Amino acid sequence: MKKGLFISIEGPDGSGKSTQIQKLKKFLEEQGREAIVTREPGGTEISEKIRAIILDKNNVEMDYMTEALLYAASRAQHVAQVIKPALDEGKTIICDRFVDSSIAYQGYGRKLGDCVRIINEFAVAGCMPDITFFLKIDPSIGKMRIKEEVQDRLELEKLAFHNEVFRGYLELEENYKDRIIGIDANRSIKEISKDIIGHMKQLLNL
Amino acid sequence: MKKGLFISIEGPDGSGKSTQIQKLKKFLEEQGREAIVTREPGGTEISEKIRAIILDKNNVEMDYMTEALLYAASRAQHVAQVIKPALDEGKTIICDRFVDSSIAYQGYGRKLGDCVRIINEFAVAGCMPDITFFLKIDPSIGKMRIKEEVQDRLELEKLAFHNEVFRGYLELEENYKDRIIGIDANRSIKEISKDIIGHMKQLLNL
Repeated sequence: MKKGLFISIEGPDGSGKSTQIQKLKKFLEEQGREAIVTREPGGTEISEKIRAIILDKNNVEMDYMTEALLYAASRAQHVAQVIKPALDEGKTIICDRFVDSSIAYQGYGRKLGDCVRIINEFAVAGCMPDITFFLKIDPSIGKMRIKEEVQDRLELEKLAFHNEVFRGYLELEENYKDRIIGIDANRSIKEISKDIIGHMKQLLNL
Repeated sequence: MKKGLFISIEGPDGSGKSTQIQKLKKFLEEQGREAIVTREPGGTEISEKIRAIILDKNNVEMDYMTEALLYAASRAQHVAQVIKPALDEGKTIICDRFVDSSIAYQGYGRKLGDCVRIINEFAVAGCMPDITFFLKIDPSIGKMRIKEEVQDRLELEKLAFHNEVFRGYLELEENYKDRIIGIDANRSIKEISKDIIGHMKQLLNL
């Protein structure tokens, strides 16, 4: 049905997603494609209102399941109002995090389990990426790239959470081999970009 | 696990739910039970913020699936913060509409199908009513009870929606015979109340 190409980029914080997205966008534009970079809440007014509830520091009593359902609601709106219309017009979408992030962070990190996948299947209504690049980097290295202070006890606890998220990503990579391409992100920006663009050329028969 | 009793009341608008809830609460209190009447958003701050998004007339572009996920998110919070703690303390909960309303209005009325049931199963995490009273009244009569103006074309279209909702309720009644008690609401307040309280006495071995 959809005429456009849908790409998502996944991986731990500090894995270099933003840099690689810009390089990928540049490559796709050189191929004459209109590439739209998006991320949730994706500029829709409704999704932004939902995100404001999720991120509001006053909402300390928020149940994990409420959080998961709110993320899915925000995504449903992003898909219906931004992603799907753009793909229907033949545009290329590069999405900074998508369903896999929810499964890794909430299904594994928050330990909500498989329900996160099922809820998100309903939320995206079949609108899934054609290809997903998973930037693989040890979460502790990703964290160091963001700030290099010595980690305290709380930070170490957070690292346990991020290790669980990473384990989720690895299982997703294993379960969706046809869609998810693991990319070694322990390399230079140039090498990583060359790797991603190599896979894109293969997909596009270039 | 839970020590309290969980009752929900369902049915079309104008079926007399509020009146019957007050009569049921009075009966339960006469039996020495602490009965809490609640309805979504159930007084939780987070659920109220979610409800404000659902009901905001400016959100005309809201996708039906976004709406269903937001209702479920609001319900998850209501259950986690209000209903479950009260039941754990042995209190009796009378809830004005619950999961069945979502299935009838969004699954059937909005034609989202079975996903509404599945999403709400995750939202309530097993916290389901012990007994549900479904006040059965033809939706057109329910509407007339609320306002008796002549129905225009738009109202008639809305009636088709409400008929679909009612069909959903009838299927739920058929599928969950052990939990859902259909009550003929085409009778006097006194007769309906006597019927409901009769079922309660049976449930409580009184």
